[in-house]
Amino acid sequence: MKLLPDDGSSARAHKNDEGSSGESEISDLEGLTRRLQRFAEEREWGQYHSPRNLILALVGEVGELAAVVQWLDEGRVDELVRDASKRRVLVDEIADVLIYLVRLADVCEVDLLEAAQGKIASNEQRYPVDEFRGSAKKAPQWSSSVSGGTERGPA
Amino acid sequence: MKLLPDDGSSARAHKNDEGSSGESEISDLEGLTRRLQRFAEEREWGQYHSPRNLILALVGEVGELAAVVQWLDEGRVDELVRDASKRRVLVDEIADVLIYLVRLADVCEVDLLEAAQGKIASNEQRYPVDEFRGSAKKAPQWSSSVSGGTERGPA
Amino acid sequence: MKLLPDDGSSARAHKNDEGSSGESEISDLEGLTRRLQRFAEEREWGQYHSPRNLILALVGEVGELAAVVQWLDEGRVDELVRDASKRRVLVDEIADVLIYLVRLADVCEVDLLEAAQGKIASNEQRYPVDEFRGSAKKAPQWSSSVSGGTERGPA
Amino acid sequence: MKLLPDDGSSARAHKNDEGSSGESEISDLEGLTRRLQRFAEEREWGQYHSPRNLILALVGEVGELAAVVQWLDEGRVDELVRDASKRRVLVDEIADVLIYLVRLADVCEVDLLEAAQGKIASNEQRYPVDEFRGSAKKAPQWSSSVSGGTERGPA
Repeated sequence: MKLLPDDGSSARAHKNDEGSSGESEISDLEGLTRRLQRFAEEREWGQYHSPRNLILALVGEVGELAAVVQWLDEGRVDELVRDASKRRVLVDEIADVLIYLVRLADVCEVDLLEAAQGKIASNEQRYPVDEFRGSAKKAPQWSSSVSGGTERGPA
Repeated sequence: MKLLPDDGSSARAHKNDEGSSGESEISDLEGLTRRLQRFAEEREWGQYHSPRNLILALVGEVGELAAVVQWLDEGRVDELVRDASKRRVLVDEIADVLIYLVRLADVCEVDLLEAAQGKIASNEQRYPVDEFRGSAKKAPQWSSSVSGGTERGPA
Repeated sequence: MKLLPDDGSSARAHKNDEGSSGESEISDLEGLTRRLQRFAEEREWGQYHSPRNLILALVGEVGELAAVVQWLDEGRVDELVRDASKRRVLVDEIADVLIYLVRLADVCEVDLLEAAQGKIASNEQRYPVDEFRGSAKKAPQWSSSVSGGTERGPA
Repeated sequence: MKLLPDDGSSARAHKNDEGSSGESEISDLEGLTRRLQRFAEEREWGQYHSPRNLILALVGEVGELAAVVQWLDEGRVDELVRDASKRRVLVDEIADVLIYLVRLADVCEVDLLEAAQGKIASNEQRYPVDEFRGSAKKAPQWSSSVSGGTERGPA
């Protein structure tokens, strides 16, 4: 169901890579976690991966992601998303955010899927479908922020 | 291998929930993606989930994550991570970041694992083990930033 | 020349405040810097104001600012900006960002105006008027990000 | 009282610049605001400077600032701050954050000093000196975040 193949050249090149690391394909979050562990261990970079350092690194990557779309209106973002070559920069920044988030979860021993599931369950109770469906009036637009709450609305 | 059970009360409560949504457990990124799609569809919130909106929401959540550790030295962060009740706030913020990242990847049709794998492969070439191992001198500390590059070092 | 009075109720209330701190009005960046120094000293909070802590706090405030506009299209942001009561949340978040930025500059002994002036001078050379004027084609839209540069375009 | 002269080479070079723009020195926030207005007008970039775009640009710059210190412990940050050549990158990123913040305030017609003064006055009431002084126990460390509040502690 993917619209675009994400070019995927680097992933493909990687699969054929039989070099020193002889990596196998990453098929789930656990595999990604282990691969990032090994990446850090091989370079002895684990010493830098404290939670605060990783959060700062995550901030840096989210900043790069924001920079990709900062001057683009919605129409041009759509163009970017749909252009096989231009979208590469967006895909790479999203990947960088995931990489640091997975590393952070790992050093804090957080099970990402369990954590997300818990949060969604709590959001389902906080935003009952009947009360929040559709109506722009009910959608947590300004109200939440204005009221000083931490509600952040849709999703 | 998890040090702490993340309390997990909300996830557990959720599993027993046989309510309107009758959710099954989320077992992988694809399951999480689908669950978030349904969450948005049920509330008709998909209309708000443009890439730029989701990036801004991601920024908001990363900001909350930063706020959790902003006044804590490394020792106190460790305490927080190790305390079953205090760590909840950290776990929840990490979950929120993942939730918006997965939603963003979905609307941009990005395969997160493939994207991460591609990025790691490229980082492996960029930071050869032999050249970057250990040595604080070689570790990309200031040099990269100072040189104005986008290199962001470890990981 | 201000369109709206920013409500200003808290600033006004403050001016009449002849309480323990007996504050005078802040008339420039230096005055703001000194006021924030005293605020921190009175509470013995200076010990928390290391550069990294303040950067994390700045990230938190920028996250709150992003959250204010995350679900609003440009038209609704304009409405927010123009509505005397609704704009309060935006004004407050902008103020929080400034507060932490001024505090950060202070502990790092950075002269903010001098630093900004230096950066603008360098941007004037980097983006000559004749080359970058108007033309959407020349405007640093995708190109810069795509090319992996740190160019961030307009401004 | 400045420890280091911020090198200041670019600012100095600028002062001697008698080129097309014939800039005078920026002596206050209002001067900075006007200079940034002219910078944008000359390049016809004002069209890109909507509040949301500027907030995203601000996020990008804060991300670069975070990246400067992401792998540095407090001691190395101090070294960076104290080294006349290394600190340039920090000074420049702080300047970039200020630039976008001033531009954002301008397009939203926010008086930065008035807004900051109002926020400080409100913080003085929220954190009375007697109650919050010194005591690490009283300092808003985890408690605030854990309680889900938007309190962000010191400053």
